[in-house]
Amino acid sequence: MSLKQYFEAMLPEIEKELQRQVARLNAANIRPFHDMLSYHMGWTGEGAGKEAAGKRIRPVSVLLTAAASGGDWVSALPAAAAVELIHNFSLVHDDVQDNSPKRRGRPTVWKKWGVPMAINVGDALFVIAFQALTDLSASYPAETALRAASILQNACLDLTRGQYLDMAYEGRCDLSLEDYWQMVGGKTSALLSACMEIGALLGGASAPQQEACRQFGYRLGLAFQVQDDVLGVWGDEAVTGKSAASDLAKGKNSLPVLYGLSKGGNFAERWKRGPIQADEIRETAQALEQEGGRKYAEEIAQRETDAALDCLKKAALRAPAADALLELANALLRRAQ
Amino acid sequence: MSLKQYFEAMLPEIEKELQRQVARLNAANIRPFHDMLSYHMGWTGEGAGKEAAGKRIRPVSVLLTAAASGGDWVSALPAAAAVELIHNFSLVHDDVQDNSPKRRGRPTVWKKWGVPMAINVGDALFVIAFQALTDLSASYPAETALRAASILQNACLDLTRGQYLDMAYEGRCDLSLEDYWQMVGGKTSALLSACMEIGALLGGASAPQQEACRQFGYRLGLAFQVQDDVLGVWGDEAVTGKSAASDLAKGKNSLPVLYGLSKGGNFAERWKRGPIQADEIRETAQALEQEGGRKYAEEIAQRETDAALDCLKKAALRAPAADALLELANALLRRAQ
Repeated sequence: MSLKQYFEAMLPEIEKELQRQVARLNAANIRPFHDMLSYHMGWTGEGAGKEAAGKRIRPVSVLLTAAASGGDWVSALPAAAAVELIHNFSLVHDDVQDNSPKRRGRPTVWKKWGVPMAINVGDALFVIAFQALTDLSASYPAETALRAASILQNACLDLTRGQYLDMAYEGRCDLSLEDYWQMVGGKTSALLSACMEIGALLGGASAPQQEACRQFGYRLGLAFQVQDDVLGVWGDEAVTGKSAASDLAKGKNSLPVLYGLSKGGNFAERWKRGPIQADEIRETAQALEQEGGRKYAEEIAQRETDAALDCLKKAALRAPAADALLELANALLRRAQ
Repeated sequence: MSLKQYFEAMLPEIEKELQRQVARLNAANIRPFHDMLSYHMGWTGEGAGKEAAGKRIRPVSVLLTAAASGGDWVSALPAAAAVELIHNFSLVHDDVQDNSPKRRGRPTVWKKWGVPMAINVGDALFVIAFQALTDLSASYPAETALRAASILQNACLDLTRGQYLDMAYEGRCDLSLEDYWQMVGGKTSALLSACMEIGALLGGASAPQQEACRQFGYRLGLAFQVQDDVLGVWGDEAVTGKSAASDLAKGKNSLPVLYGLSKGGNFAERWKRGPIQADEIRETAQALEQEGGRKYAEEIAQRETDAALDCLKKAALRAPAADALLELANALLRRAQ
C-alpha cells in the first residue's frame, strides 16, 4: 500500500472517530457549543471541508506507526483522534493568544464567538482528547492506555512550555540558537514525537523501537519547523504575497533571523530598529540571505532530516506501512522546498 | 480525629504534593512561567499565604472519603492534588472569561501577566492535574488509575458545559429553573462529586458506596451553590458592601432571581428593565424577598442538604473519617446561614 492508499483508507475512519469523540457534547441544551467545536474541526459552517479540517498528519502518523510496528491500526483510532484533538486545542488557544483572525482560510473561533467562548472550546477539545485516550482500555491493557496518556501528557506540558517561551521571546533581539531549539522543541516537535511513540507503543514495538520512533518524530518536527522558517522568509508567498505572509514583517524569531542577529551585520542592525515594513520585506530578505541566514537554516533542515530518517531506519519497522511513513516524512519536508 | 485534626494532618501533605506536581515546570529557562502557577496557587508573590491559596476543600474531600472507605489517605495524595489543580485551572480561565481583576484578594493572573499568558497558565495546570493522576499507578492497579482519570475527565467536560451555559445565559431573562440546575450541576457540583467518587474508589469502597459518595458530592455542591446564591443577594456584604458584592448588581442568573422572574411581579419587571444600580440594591432585594425568592431558595438549599446527608448515610463509611466528612458538609453549608 502506498501512502496515498493509506490516507484513503485511514482518513474516513479518523473523521468518524473524531466526530464520535466530539459528540460527547452533542446534547440539545448545548448544541451551539458542540457547533463551535464542529466548526473548528472543519466539519460545519461556511467553508467547511478538507481545506478547513487540515491535513490530519498527526493522526495518520499514529496509525502508520502502529501498523508498521505490527499492530492493527483500527484499534489505535482513539489515540489518533486524541492527538488531533490536542493539536486543535492548541490551535484554538494559539489563535486567541496571537490575536489571529484567520485559520485555514476561515475566521477563527474567537473571532466568531469571542475570547471567553474560544477559551472554553479549547478546554473542551483538551478534555475530550484525554477521554479518547481512556477509550483505549477497550482494546489494550490498562497499563498501555495509561502509558499512552502519560506520553501525551508530557507532550502537552512541552506545548505549554514552548508556548510560554514563544510569548516571552516576543520583541526580544537577544535570543540564542539554544533558546530557539527549546521553543521549537515544545511547539512543534513534542506532539509529533508523541504521535510516533504512541503509535509504536500501541503497535507492539519493542522499547528500543519506541524510543527510535519518538526520536524520529522529534527530529522530523524540528526539520519541518526549520523548513517552515525558510519558507516564511523566502517562500513565494512571503516575498510576493501580502506582508502578513512574511515572518520578517511579523517580527517572528525564526531560525534564519536568530542566525542573522548573531552575525551582527546589516540585517541585525535593521531588525533591531523595529518592525520591517511591507516595502522593505524583499531587501531585508536579501540582506539576510547574503549574510548566510538562508544557507545556515537549509543546512540545519537537512541535518535534522537526515537524523530523522536515520532514526526511522534504526526503528526497523515493517513494510508496507514503514515505507509509507518514510514517504510521509519526505512529503512533509519537500513541502518547503 | 476531628475535622480540624484531619485538616491539620492533611493540609501540609496536600501542599507538598501540589508543589511537587507543579515543579514539573521548574526549569531555569521557564522560571517566570513556574512563578505564575506558584503565584496563583497562593505560594509566592505579594499576599501569598493561606488566604491566597483558598481552603483546599476539594483535596481534603478526596482524602477524607478515601480514609472513610477504609483506605490509606497518603497514597491518594496525587488524586487530591489533581482535583485542586483542576479547580485552579478553571479559576484562572474563569477570571479571564469573566474579566475579573481580583481573586482571593489579589490581582488575577491575567491582570498581572496578560490574557495570553493566563490562558497558558490554565492549560499547564490542567495538564499537570492529569499527570498527577497518572502518578496513582505507583500505588494502585492501572485499572484504578484509569478509572480515576475517567471520573475526573467527565467532571472536566461537565465544567466546560456549565461554563458554556453560564456564558450563554448572560443577559437573558427567559431562563427556566431547569436551565439553572444544568448550569450549576456543571459549574459547582461536577467537581465536588468527582472528589467524593475518586476518594471512595481509591479507599476501596464498594460500587454502591462509590455511587452514594458521588451523589453525596453532587447534592452537596448544589446545596452549597444555592446557599451561595442566597448570600449573594441577602448576605451582609451583598446588602451593605460595595455593589460588586451583590449578585443583583452583577446581573447574575442565580436561583432566587430565576424564581422571581418566573413570578412576573415587581421584581421581574424591574430586572427586565436593565442593570440594578447601587442605590437600588436594597429595595430590589426586599422586593425579591417579598415575592418569595428567598424562602424558595432556602427551602431548596435545605432539601439538597438533606438529600446530600442521606447519601452520605447510605454510603455507610467508617468513623472517624466519616464523621469528619459529615462535619465538613455541615461546615460548608452553615457558612451561608
